[in-house]
Amino acid sequence: MKFWFFPFLLVLSSCIDESDIQLNIEKTMNRQVSEWNNRNINGFMEPYWHSDSLRFMGKSGVTKGWQATLSRYQKNYKPDKMGNLNFSDIHFDILSAEAAWVDGQWRLSYPDTTISGRFSLLWKKFNGKWQIVADHSS
Amino acid sequence: MKFWFFPFLLVLSSCIDESDIQLNIEKTMNRQVSEWNNRNINGFMEPYWHSDSLRFMGKSGVTKGWQATLSRYQKNYKPDKMGNLNFSDIHFDILSAEAAWVDGQWRLSYPDTTISGRFSLLWKKFNGKWQIVADHSS
Repeated sequence: MKFWFFPFLLVLSSCIDESDIQLNIEKTMNRQVSEWNNRNINGFMEPYWHSDSLRFMGKSGVTKGWQATLSRYQKNYKPDKMGNLNFSDIHFDILSAEAAWVDGQWRLSYPDTTISGRFSLLWKKFNGKWQIVADHSS
Repeated sequence: MKFWFFPFLLVLSSCIDESDIQLNIEKTMNRQVSEWNNRNINGFMEPYWHSDSLRFMGKSGVTKGWQATLSRYQKNYKPDKMGNLNFSDIHFDILSAEAAWVDGQWRLSYPDTTISGRFSLLWKKFNGKWQIVADHSS
């Protein structure tokens, strides 16, 4: 056993593959967009943390828990109100092998108008799967 | 050199003192509130990352960089428009020894009215000092 092995091990344990994490989250977000545009809110909600500790924030306050967040979406976005979703200007900040900040612009296009705003997401990796644990949308 | 020393070292290297980090950020945010209420925007802005990579997000878009964020505050909040700032309902998610998500409610009280909204902050520790690298306010 050599002593140089220690720093080598510690460096190795702190290495994270940022591009792999980004790609994984990008794919998940692309699936969310497809699900939304297929009028499937349950599918869109799939990557949200299935936990009572999920936090969804808007100007009006905080919605806590996966079920309450699903109900909020179902109430606010009946199929004919869902429009066509698009994400753009996405910025990734990979914080560790298990946490990432992602922000960007959301846009909903309707036949006669478009609405848009910003989102900031906190993603965490649980059991090998990246999930949204907090969403601030405005 | 014993082999049990390896897992011990790895566990030790991953330990973080969450309450110490939270206390540190809380103190910094309390100082921000005092500075704001003393009409000192530069003092309020002190914990924001002094970098062109700072990101400040609102519904209208992204302001990039410390100087641009300061200018935005100076333009939108002349001394007589600053009101009395208060933070409440603060939620901490310590992500590592060097990163934390903090969200909460901001409130500005004026003699005749009150306005409020939510903030989500990404804090990072640089050179032993916690700084806000991203702020989504709505």
